[in-house]
Amino acid sequence: MRGTMKCVVKTKPGPNNLELCERPIPQPGPGEVLIKVQLAAICGTDVHIKDWDPFAAARINPPVIIGHEFCGEIVEIGIGVDSTRIGKLVSAESHVVCGHCAMCKAGLANVCLNTTCIGLHFDGAFAEYVVIPDENAIVCDPNLPEEVNAILEPLGVAVHAASKCELAGKTVAVVGCGPIGLMAVAVARKMGAGKIIAVETNEYRLDTAIKMGATVTVNPLKEDTIKSVRNATDGLGPEVILEFSGSKHAIIDETKYIRKGGSIVVAGLPSGEIGLNFEDIFYNGVNMYGISGRELYRTWNIMQGLLDAGLDVKECISDVLPLEDFEKGFELIKSGKALKVLFRP
Amino acid sequence: MRGTMKCVVKTKPGPNNLELCERPIPQPGPGEVLIKVQLAAICGTDVHIKDWDPFAAARINPPVIIGHEFCGEIVEIGIGVDSTRIGKLVSAESHVVCGHCAMCKAGLANVCLNTTCIGLHFDGAFAEYVVIPDENAIVCDPNLPEEVNAILEPLGVAVHAASKCELAGKTVAVVGCGPIGLMAVAVARKMGAGKIIAVETNEYRLDTAIKMGATVTVNPLKEDTIKSVRNATDGLGPEVILEFSGSKHAIIDETKYIRKGGSIVVAGLPSGEIGLNFEDIFYNGVNMYGISGRELYRTWNIMQGLLDAGLDVKECISDVLPLEDFEKGFELIKSGKALKVLFRP
Amino acid sequence: MRGTMKCVVKTKPGPNNLELCERPIPQPGPGEVLIKVQLAAICGTDVHIKDWDPFAAARINPPVIIGHEFCGEIVEIGIGVDSTRIGKLVSAESHVVCGHCAMCKAGLANVCLNTTCIGLHFDGAFAEYVVIPDENAIVCDPNLPEEVNAILEPLGVAVHAASKCELAGKTVAVVGCGPIGLMAVAVARKMGAGKIIAVETNEYRLDTAIKMGATVTVNPLKEDTIKSVRNATDGLGPEVILEFSGSKHAIIDETKYIRKGGSIVVAGLPSGEIGLNFEDIFYNGVNMYGISGRELYRTWNIMQGLLDAGLDVKECISDVLPLEDFEKGFELIKSGKALKVLFRP
Amino acid sequence: MRGTMKCVVKTKPGPNNLELCERPIPQPGPGEVLIKVQLAAICGTDVHIKDWDPFAAARINPPVIIGHEFCGEIVEIGIGVDSTRIGKLVSAESHVVCGHCAMCKAGLANVCLNTTCIGLHFDGAFAEYVVIPDENAIVCDPNLPEEVNAILEPLGVAVHAASKCELAGKTVAVVGCGPIGLMAVAVARKMGAGKIIAVETNEYRLDTAIKMGATVTVNPLKEDTIKSVRNATDGLGPEVILEFSGSKHAIIDETKYIRKGGSIVVAGLPSGEIGLNFEDIFYNGVNMYGISGRELYRTWNIMQGLLDAGLDVKECISDVLPLEDFEKGFELIKSGKALKVLFRP
Repeated sequence: MRGTMKCVVKTKPGPNNLELCERPIPQPGPGEVLIKVQLAAICGTDVHIKDWDPFAAARINPPVIIGHEFCGEIVEIGIGVDSTRIGKLVSAESHVVCGHCAMCKAGLANVCLNTTCIGLHFDGAFAEYVVIPDENAIVCDPNLPEEVNAILEPLGVAVHAASKCELAGKTVAVVGCGPIGLMAVAVARKMGAGKIIAVETNEYRLDTAIKMGATVTVNPLKEDTIKSVRNATDGLGPEVILEFSGSKHAIIDETKYIRKGGSIVVAGLPSGEIGLNFEDIFYNGVNMYGISGRELYRTWNIMQGLLDAGLDVKECISDVLPLEDFEKGFELIKSGKALKVLFRP
Repeated sequence: MRGTMKCVVKTKPGPNNLELCERPIPQPGPGEVLIKVQLAAICGTDVHIKDWDPFAAARINPPVIIGHEFCGEIVEIGIGVDSTRIGKLVSAESHVVCGHCAMCKAGLANVCLNTTCIGLHFDGAFAEYVVIPDENAIVCDPNLPEEVNAILEPLGVAVHAASKCELAGKTVAVVGCGPIGLMAVAVARKMGAGKIIAVETNEYRLDTAIKMGATVTVNPLKEDTIKSVRNATDGLGPEVILEFSGSKHAIIDETKYIRKGGSIVVAGLPSGEIGLNFEDIFYNGVNMYGISGRELYRTWNIMQGLLDAGLDVKECISDVLPLEDFEKGFELIKSGKALKVLFRP
Repeated sequence: MRGTMKCVVKTKPGPNNLELCERPIPQPGPGEVLIKVQLAAICGTDVHIKDWDPFAAARINPPVIIGHEFCGEIVEIGIGVDSTRIGKLVSAESHVVCGHCAMCKAGLANVCLNTTCIGLHFDGAFAEYVVIPDENAIVCDPNLPEEVNAILEPLGVAVHAASKCELAGKTVAVVGCGPIGLMAVAVARKMGAGKIIAVETNEYRLDTAIKMGATVTVNPLKEDTIKSVRNATDGLGPEVILEFSGSKHAIIDETKYIRKGGSIVVAGLPSGEIGLNFEDIFYNGVNMYGISGRELYRTWNIMQGLLDAGLDVKECISDVLPLEDFEKGFELIKSGKALKVLFRP
Repeated sequence: MRGTMKCVVKTKPGPNNLELCERPIPQPGPGEVLIKVQLAAICGTDVHIKDWDPFAAARINPPVIIGHEFCGEIVEIGIGVDSTRIGKLVSAESHVVCGHCAMCKAGLANVCLNTTCIGLHFDGAFAEYVVIPDENAIVCDPNLPEEVNAILEPLGVAVHAASKCELAGKTVAVVGCGPIGLMAVAVARKMGAGKIIAVETNEYRLDTAIKMGATVTVNPLKEDTIKSVRNATDGLGPEVILEFSGSKHAIIDETKYIRKGGSIVVAGLPSGEIGLNFEDIFYNGVNMYGISGRELYRTWNIMQGLLDAGLDVKECISDVLPLEDFEKGFELIKSGKALKVLFRP
C-alpha cells in the first residue's frame, strides 16, 4: 500500500518527545502482515516511554512509533503468508519470539531470550497502519466490541496471572485495580473465585472493581489493610493474591495477610528493591509466581474461551479519543481519573 | 434423645424390600453427632440398593436404614464432640474414612482402604434422625435453600470431576445429564468453561442442561453424536469430557471425538466390560481420570467457594415428597420424568 | 553432495518388499540438513512396515527408504540453515510438526494434526545419507557411545512416559521389557523410583531388566502376575505402571493390581479392542495417561540431563550389523533373542 | 516404666542454660507412645534455642527437654494404641498437628494453625526416653544404619524441597551445604538431576558435597558466584535452585543467576528483611516456593522409597557423641568443622 499515515513517534531519548508525525505506510516483509489499525490502547509501558524512566531507557531506541495494544484488519500480506489472512480482524501478541532459544525450546516462549516488542523495538500501533509478523496476528471474534478486541494483549496478562493457580472456589485478593487489575477481577469472577477482595487506594477504581465482580473492597488509605483483609477471610487471609499494584507497601502487606500455604502471583513490579521477611512468606509454605507476558499461545486460547463464556471487561475502558489527541490521553491517565484509554487513528 | 422415629429400611436382601418402619432414635457414641434430618435425596446408589444389583449386593448387609444425601441440624453430641456444634445446620460427607491406611496417609482418603458409607454400611438418613461421626458433618450456609444443602454430597462429585482438569476457557462436553451431570454443567459454567456441550438422550434433561448453562445440546438418539460434537468444536473435539452417563455407547463415542491431548474425566461406570481402542485414546495423548467420591476436604472447600460465588443448582431438583411417599419417589426416577427427588421426613 | 548411496527401501505395499537399493544422495532443501548416517536402529514400526500390518498400511506410501532412529553428522545444509551446524553430531526427532495447528499452538506438538515422520512419510535413515529439517536435528553429546546416540528417539519415548508422573520414591511396575521398556527401567531407576517391578514373559529380557535397574521380576508365564505384583508391594499394588507391552492380558492385569489412586502410563498399544472394567480402574481413582512421541522439546532436555547424570542404556542394545545384513536384523528381532538391533551403513 | 533418666534441659530463658539433668521417665498418655531413644541429632533449631535468638524465644517456654531428631524403639504404649506397635523401631515426625484446622482440612497439615513441636513445646529427645503421639512415630527400616534413621526428620526437609519441582534431568544448584543442603545434594542426585552445582563457603562442606553427588562446586569466598554458576550452565543459569543457606548475599545472587522461567525453592531463612529486585525475579517468570516441615505423610513416603532405592546420606554425619558430651556437640557445630552431630543417650 502506498502513501503516508499519521502516527505517534517517540522522536528522541528523554522525557516526553512524543510527536504526531506523517510517515510512509510500512510494507510487510516475508512472513509479515500490514494491519489497518482500528483502535489502540495506552499501556503503562507507553507511559514509561513517555516519561523515559530507566525501564524504558534500557529498552527503546528512538525514533520509533509506539503502541502495542490494538486491533485492526489485515490489509496486505508479505511473501509466504496465507492469502486467506487478508481481511481478518486481528489483535496482536506484542512479544515477537525467536522460536529457537533454550526458553522457546522449553515451552517458555514468554521469556524468550531474544524477545522484541511491537512499539518498543520496532514501529508500533499508534498509527494508521502497522506491520507485524503474521504469527503475532491473532484472529479476533468480530462479535465482540472493538474496544475489547483492542485490549486483548493486556487482558492476556490478567488471564495469565489468573491461570497460574486454580481460582475456582478460592478466596482471592486482587491488589492494584488499574486496568489490568480490574480485568483480573472480572477474570477471577468468571473463573469461579469465591470471595474477591479488591485492594486499591483510588475510589473510582474500587467502584469499578465492584462493577467488575469484586465482593469486598479495601482502601489502604482509609483502613488497616491487613486487618480488613483478614476480617473478610475468616481471619485466614486469601488463598491467592493477584498482585498488580507494584507498590512496596502493598506487597509487604500481602506477605503479612496471605493465607498459610497460599499463593502470590506477581505481575506488579515495584522499582528498585523491596525488603521482604522470608519467615512471613516461605516458612509459611507460601509460593510466589512470576508473570511475564502471555503463554504462547495457551493464554490466548483460554482468553478466547472466557470471552466465549461471556467475560466482559468493557467497564475498565474509560475513554476513546482520536489519535490526534494522544497528549490528552496520557494526561487522563496521569490524573487518576481514567482507566483504559484508547485511540482511534 | 428418647423415642422412636419413622425411617425407610432395606429389610432383607433381594429386589425391593424397602419398608417404612418405626425405630428407636439412635444415640451418638463418642465422636458422633445426632442430626435431625430436614431433607434427604435419592441417589443412584439407593436405586441400586432397591433393585439389588451386584454393586449393592456386594456392599450392603440388611436390615439397614438407607439414604446418605441430606441436611439437617445437630441436636445431640457424643463424648468428645465440641458443644458448640449443637444447633449447627450440616450436610454430610458420606464416606467415613480410617485416617490410618496407606491411602489416607498419602492424602487420598477418598479411596481409603477401610471406607464405610452412611446408609450402606450403617444406618442412614431416610429417617427423622441419623447418627454420623462429627468429622463427617460439614457446616452448611443457612442462607442457601435447604434443597441445595441436602444435595451437597452429589454436588461434590460434580465439583470433584470438574476440578480434575482446568476448565476455565476450555471447550467441555458433559455426557449424561442426570442430576450429577446437570450439576456438572452448572459447575463448568461457573468455572468459566468456554463452550459446554451437553450430550444426553432424554430431552427433558437436555432442556434442563440449557437452563443450567450448556451452550450446545446433542441428543444421540436424534443425531450422529461424533459428527455433532465435532461440528460444535471446529472439528477438534472438546478439550475435556466429563463422563457421567455410564453408557458403553456414549463412552466409546467419547474416545472418538475427544480432542488430541484432551482429558476424559470418568465418573460414570458402565456395568461389565467395555471394549476400548487404545490407539484412539492413548496414542493421541489423551488422559483419562478416575473420580471416586470427594477429596477430603479440598472438594468441600471448593464447593463452598463456588456456592459463595453464586453457583445455583436448584434446577436439577424436580420433586420434594414426604418420606412416607418414598415409593413414589423411586417410581418418579425410574420414569425418567424426574431429576433429583428429595424426601422430607 | 553428488553420487549414490545404498539404502533399504520398502518398494511396494504388502508384506516384506524390503530391498537394498542404490539411490542418489538426497539434497537438502531450504531449512533442511543432509546427515551422513553413523548408526540406525530398527524400531517396532519398521517391523510393522515390513509385515504390512494395518498400522503401517494406513501410514506409508511406498516406495520409501525406511528407518527413523539414528545418529550421524551434518555434512551439508540447505538455504537458511546456520552454517555452524555443519559437522555437528546429531540425532533426530522423528516427528516433523507444522507449528501452526491448534495442537502446536497449545504446546502439544507431539500430537500435531499435520505430523509427518522420517522413514514413513518421506525417506529415512536406513541409508548412508538422510535429509531432515534442521529443526529436527538435535545435537548429541559426542562423549556418549554412538550406539546410544543412535537410539535417543526411542529413549525419548521411555523418558516421556517416565516423566508423566512423579517417579521419585515411588513403587513402579514396568510392563513389557522390549527395548523401550528396558530403557524405561533404567530411566525410572535414575529418577529415584523405589521398587521397580519388571513384568515380562521373555527371560532374556527379564535378566536384562535386572541389569538395567529392576528390583523385582515377574514372569506371567510362570506365576500369577496379580499375586506376585501385589506381594512385592505390601499388597497395595504399584503406585505407577509404565505400560509398554501392548498385550491385552497384561493390561487387564494392570487394572487389577494398580494401587488405588495410582497411575497407568500407556505407551503400549494392543491392536483392536480391549475390554476394560471401569469399576476396577476409575472408581478406584486411578488415572490413565497416553503417551505419543516426545514432548517437543521438553523431553529431549530432560533426556540430555539424565544422560549427563549417567543414565546408561547400552545393555538394551544386542546387535550391530552392517546395513547389508538388514534381513538378518529383522530376523533377530522376530526370534525374541535380540533387543535393540542397529545397522551401520 | 518407672525410674529416672538423664536428659538435656533448657532450664530457663536466655543464652545457654542447657543442663544435663535427671528426670522421671515420662508416661505415655492416651494415643501416645514411650520411645527408648537410640540416637538423637542436633538441629539448627537446637542451636537457636541454646543461643536464645528471637526465633527460639518466641517459641519455647523453659524448662523443656530439647531435641526432636531421633530414632528409637517403642517400649510402652498409652491407651488406644495398637499393641503391635511395641518393639517397633521408629523415627519421628516432629510436628504434632491438630487435624481439624483449615490448613489440615485443606491437606496442608505441614502449616497447621495449631502445630506444636517435639523438644520445643513439650519434652523432646535429648534424653533416654521420650513420649510422642503414636501418629508421629514412623516405622523405620531396621536395615538402614541407625545414624540415618536418627536424621530422617531433617532428611525429610531436603526431600520436601527436592520434591517441590521436578528435578529429573534438570540443572540444579544447591546453595548452602550444611547437613540439610548436603542431604539435598544426595537427594537431587538420586532423583536424576543432570548437573548439580553446590554453592558454599566452607571447603570441608564443599568436599562433602562432591562426595554426596555434586558435579560442580562454587565457593563465593573465592570466586564470582554469579559468573561461575552461569559458566557452569551454558550461561543460562540453573533451572532449579534449592536454597538452604539463609544468607542474604547468597539469596540475592540466586535471583541474579536463576534461569528465566526457573524455580527457587526456599528452605533457608535469613533473619530480618532482605531486599529483592522483583524485575530480576518475577518479570523473568521465575517462581519461588516456600518449604515448611514435611508434607504429612507424602514426604515420608517418598523418602522411604528413595532410601529403598539406595539413597545414602551417611556422609553428612560427622560425629556421634555420648549425650553427656552435649556441650562438645554444640561447640563442634559452631566451629564449622562438623556436619551433623549425633548423641547417644
